Amino acid sequence: MLEKIDLSKEVDKETYKKVVEEEGARLGLLQRECKAAGIPVMIVFDGMGAAGKGVQINRLIQALDPRGFSVHASNSSNEEAKLRPFLWQFWTQIPAKGRIAIFDRSWYQIVQEDRFDGATREKDLPGAYQDILSFEKQLSDDGMVIIKLFLHISQEEQKKRFKKLTNSKETAWRVSKQDWKRNKDYDEYLKINEEMLENTETEYAPWTIIEATDKDYAAMKILTTVTARLAYELERKKEQADQKADSQAVRPQERFHNGVLSGVDLTKSLTKEEYKKELSRLQKKLDKLHSELYRLRIPVVLGFEGWDAGGKGGAIKRLTSHLDPRGYQVNPTASPNDIEKVHHYLWRFWNNMPKAGHVAIFDRTWYGRVMVERIEGFCTEAEWKRAYQEINEMESHLANFGAVVLKFWLHIDKDEQERRFKERMETPAKQWKITDEDWRNREKWDQYEAAVDEMLVRTSTTYAPWIVVEGNDKYYARVKVLRTVVEALEEKIEQVKKG
Amino acid sequence: MLEKIDLSKEVDKETYKKVVEEEGARLGLLQRECKAAGIPVMIVFDGMGAAGKGVQINRLIQALDPRGFSVHASNSSNEEAKLRPFLWQFWTQIPAKGRIAIFDRSWYQIVQEDRFDGATREKDLPGAYQDILSFEKQLSDDGMVIIKLFLHISQEEQKKRFKKLTNSKETAWRVSKQDWKRNKDYDEYLKINEEMLENTETEYAPWTIIEATDKDYAAMKILTTVTARLAYELERKKEQADQKADSQAVRPQERFHNGVLSGVDLTKSLTKEEYKKELSRLQKKLDKLHSELYRLRIPVVLGFEGWDAGGKGGAIKRLTSHLDPRGYQVNPTASPNDIEKVHHYLWRFWNNMPKAGHVAIFDRTWYGRVMVERIEGFCTEAEWKRAYQEINEMESHLANFGAVVLKFWLHIDKDEQERRFKERMETPAKQWKITDEDWRNREKWDQYEAAVDEMLVRTSTTYAPWIVVEGNDKYYARVKVLRTVVEALEEKIEQVKKG
Repeated sequence: MLEKIDLSKEVDKETYKKVVEEEGARLGLLQRECKAAGIPVMIVFDGMGAAGKGVQINRLIQALDPRGFSVHASNSSNEEAKLRPFLWQFWTQIPAKGRIAIFDRSWYQIVQEDRFDGATREKDLPGAYQDILSFEKQLSDDGMVIIKLFLHISQEEQKKRFKKLTNSKETAWRVSKQDWKRNKDYDEYLKINEEMLENTETEYAPWTIIEATDKDYAAMKILTTVTARLAYELERKKEQADQKADSQAVRPQERFHNGVLSGVDLTKSLTKEEYKKELSRLQKKLDKLHSELYRLRIPVVLGFEGWDAGGKGGAIKRLTSHLDPRGYQVNPTASPNDIEKVHHYLWRFWNNMPKAGHVAIFDRTWYGRVMVERIEGFCTEAEWKRAYQEINEMESHLANFGAVVLKFWLHIDKDEQERRFKERMETPAKQWKITDEDWRNREKWDQYEAAVDEMLVRTSTTYAPWIVVEGNDKYYARVKVLRTVVEALEEKIEQVKKG
Repeated sequence: MLEKIDLSKEVDKETYKKVVEEEGARLGLLQRECKAAGIPVMIVFDGMGAAGKGVQINRLIQALDPRGFSVHASNSSNEEAKLRPFLWQFWTQIPAKGRIAIFDRSWYQIVQEDRFDGATREKDLPGAYQDILSFEKQLSDDGMVIIKLFLHISQEEQKKRFKKLTNSKETAWRVSKQDWKRNKDYDEYLKINEEMLENTETEYAPWTIIEATDKDYAAMKILTTVTARLAYELERKKEQADQKADSQAVRPQERFHNGVLSGVDLTKSLTKEEYKKELSRLQKKLDKLHSELYRLRIPVVLGFEGWDAGGKGGAIKRLTSHLDPRGYQVNPTASPNDIEKVHHYLWRFWNNMPKAGHVAIFDRTWYGRVMVERIEGFCTEAEWKRAYQEINEMESHLANFGAVVLKFWLHIDKDEQERRFKERMETPAKQWKITDEDWRNREKWDQYEAAVDEMLVRTSTTYAPWIVVEGNDKYYARVKVLRTVVEALEEKIEQVKKG
């Protein structure tokens, strides 16, 4: 998930100044209102080393009344802290009602740096996560607003910053051997951070990922994240006081959301010859792997989503054409029927989950909940917001059982879609594929793009990743799908054989 | 916790008939209302072997319209189920809106029988618990009402029933080798069940423990548990439809709650000679253990609660009189001050938690939340109901860090309290100990007893047990406290030394 985020985002000086001026004034006001309403606030700055936590905390507090907040720099190697359970110091530092506590690093260190450094044992991780979740839940139930920021930079950017720090006598001490090690093993460290975000993303204490390459962009996003959240919580608190049953408070949408689709290179393509060769090679391989899967009793779940006319059908066809039909099933997903409507939305998908050794392919999936149902209002906001976690839990349950779980997003741009729609209308054999609804959905392209971006960030997990498929060229897309499946199966089979 | 429950409860035929008639008719009505309101219901029957699940399911369904429910007997050794993740079969069996599904055994088997039998590996337990919790949460968020019943009988009763079954040709097959093993290692199996109840007790899907020695009593309690819960959920659903902000629906209190204090033998006593000898022996031992604690850096948390004049002060005095004062601290707990009031209620206790190697004694504790605050209305119902889990989480965090956590309830009866109150009033040196408030609290004895019973059941855990101290005889009580502490410390030190 973290590796998918477009880190090139930046902002021009003028916009930055304008936003900081407006939102800064707003933050000062919100702080006073929170004080009056007795709302305690915790703001956590965490993320990659040298992402600029210190600088960003400094910028944020410019707008705050210094009598109303405190900054806590935490370090798990602190001697006094070591003599106590790891949450102890944070419990003692929780802000009183109406005050703001800002944390430079936090209780997340134990499942992040300490884990990477080997100071936290793998077997203690589930317990540590439980403790973190219960800590945040208990505080949140008591009225605490918890804002968690993850500052993200790339491996190259981090290296550049470490070098710059090392080159100056005044700052060289700030870069440790461990920092360099984390930069060297960036991918491994990123995975640890990704697991941390997955395990601790909750409705009451959500994470916001801050693209921190451009410091101005980061500062602007942090500021707007904090103001939007405080405004929301104040409104909710007011509604509670007024005993309003139906909350009108709108959960803060991020004004600057994480881009994923914006960074996808749609020029990728293959020649017909390359395509034929690769296709044939991969299909043969897949056929062989399919038998092994069956023998080793590995279940496989493949989900396909994408823009209308994105090429799902074609990709699925190339995937299955050489498989033994007794070993796989393709489940097309239409609107729920009457029986399905009186059950939990995941029920119909559970009914079609493969047994050990079998492959289940879903043409459209349970992700409808956070796309079409979200956008068309077929479920409530609370329902689709909750669905990210519910879906992650379902996929985690499948993965823990030993299943391979892959999800493909077939991506094309708006022009390519138009071309394909028109082609469909003009080709008698393809006319059934295009309806008025397709054209209507197309008008909501931007809404869908925002929903898909959020979905990809929130549900691409280490155990069930999303694969964004560059789909403007069908040859390239089909081969990428096949190759990804083949590689994932090979890896899994290897793993199972090793025991 | 389970071993504390008074299993001798029974009901006379007449009362039984009356309750079944009334509540049975009510259940039929509630079923129709749930159907009309589209509320799906799951009722789980779990518990000890031969506790009478089959019989009880049969009695319950007498009152139900057979077109509206289904019974699922589940078995994790089912071949079709084995090929899928363990939750799969239960996901496929969830009832549609308006229907009732009854489970004879359930998804709990994996963390109960399967764990005891070794079919579930210890390392897979945290994941299994997570899966169970998310399963119930997802369904509950979607409107499912989940009622979980744990049928409990004693080791002797179970043995008697197994023998009876074995002696008849028709039923002998129902008792397996594993059943006998579970009876033989009853304490170990009970601990597994206790952990299961601790880990899966939630607000949205709470457990009810059914004393199942007397079948009529059990049937009556099951019936009233189900009707009370359905009535509550219907009222809540109605309020939601009416968009009422402040819920008037009262969470069902169990009409037949688990007794703990009722089963305590208050005649236990020691002679003065026995007392002096034991006291001196234990105090010497404790002094030695205290040095070892310090050396091994084991933190110790001892909480004292009990009736007014129950003997807390005296017990604490005997505990500390031979300890090095640099190594322990006694924290008296009064009403929260202004600073404490603007923090989470657990904050002040966290501030006084001992560091490694130290002993913290609390004279009254965080349990005030579920006793005085509950009864006097100093916190909301939602707050004290939530507190059981919050407290368990805090104690679990301490225990996972390596702390010894013990909680003592100093129990006396009402007559003994009156005697002591009067003695205090008549003794000039003790008059400060007795106030009008003590007399007022005394008038609420029954309310307190119900709250204490609930507290003991909900928060006596494997990692932080409650010890009910028979306190009518002060000598006996003081020695029991000391001996319990000494034994717990010895056990912990042994464990730490072994690594």
